[in-house]
Amino acid sequence: MTATGPTRTSRRGRPGYDLESLLGVAVALFNERGYDGTSMEDLARRLGITKSAIYHHVSGKQELLRLAVDHALDGLFTVADEAGKLDGRAVDRLEYLVRGSVRVLVERLPFVTLLLRVRGNTEVERAALARRRRFDRIVADLVAEAERDGDIRPDVDPALTARLVFGMVNSLVEWYQPRGSDTPIVDAVAKIAFDGIRDNPTR
Amino acid sequence: MTATGPTRTSRRGRPGYDLESLLGVAVALFNERGYDGTSMEDLARRLGITKSAIYHHVSGKQELLRLAVDHALDGLFTVADEAGKLDGRAVDRLEYLVRGSVRVLVERLPFVTLLLRVRGNTEVERAALARRRRFDRIVADLVAEAERDGDIRPDVDPALTARLVFGMVNSLVEWYQPRGSDTPIVDAVAKIAFDGIRDNPTR
Repeated sequence: MTATGPTRTSRRGRPGYDLESLLGVAVALFNERGYDGTSMEDLARRLGITKSAIYHHVSGKQELLRLAVDHALDGLFTVADEAGKLDGRAVDRLEYLVRGSVRVLVERLPFVTLLLRVRGNTEVERAALARRRRFDRIVADLVAEAERDGDIRPDVDPALTARLVFGMVNSLVEWYQPRGSDTPIVDAVAKIAFDGIRDNPTR
Repeated sequence: MTATGPTRTSRRGRPGYDLESLLGVAVALFNERGYDGTSMEDLARRLGITKSAIYHHVSGKQELLRLAVDHALDGLFTVADEAGKLDGRAVDRLEYLVRGSVRVLVERLPFVTLLLRVRGNTEVERAALARRRRFDRIVADLVAEAERDGDIRPDVDPALTARLVFGMVNSLVEWYQPRGSDTPIVDAVAKIAFDGIRDNPTR
């Protein structure tokens, strides 16, 4: 069970919930009340099943959190790996990474929301924060490379540029309501991040 | 006391804390443990004084929250008022508002951090959310006006543009460490928001 991730279902003859749908409810509840503020008792009540029925699927709250944040992080690292394998200029790999990250955020919104609220109080949270830092480093390195290529403005520190762009990307968890295609939001973020909001007749 | 705000001190012969320094400690604790997760008992312990000594300054936890979020909001609305009174194009008023908002965030970082975490469970929180919405409306209206002037790109919905720019601004509470002058961060946000991260030889 531990290594299966949230898309693999598990039944063992229990009706009602597979691991994926159980995880979806757990993530919604964690986002609503905070991870620390949610007990397995609360989760059982929300699901309308007993705690022992939950323990048929997972070892406990920490495993639910780990599966949830890994679902968000796996999505982001898949995009980073794809970007790293592209031919061409660093600025184009960066744009691929920004667009792909927005898509992951939108498609896995509750999971990324939970990830971004993790503060590092448990082993699982500290591991998630360490993976986030590795991702941030990939972004910062790509910005720095694109700046050396002369494709990214040299008058802002690359690490700061990376943080501000992903600050904009991550802000989606605060207000974005998924509906229909994710193309408009992906395009909007990429346009504003790369070329700004000013209407530029030379563009 | 109620109307004084956090910069006015109040002593009444009590040594150790005036209202401003008490509020600073309360805000730090709210940000650390969450407003709901912090009791007046916790606050008294952190301050090293009795609960009744706190009640010499404020009527309770709600008043501390109100003073704190109003300190953040008053800063933002002052900038919005100043921007509104400027002569000139909407895009320039918008840039004034973005720059001023970053300055307020940096100068009142713990207060704005608390404001951005408010979820609306109490009267004070609902009032703060209502003021935030009024501020967001001012920003969105200014973006729409600048777009009608032909100064802001017309290919992104003005409300979305406003949200993304302030998503970038607000992300500062997650990672910005104030040190020295706030000019570099103000400039970086304004440059990236208005002209993007791409190095543009025609800029």
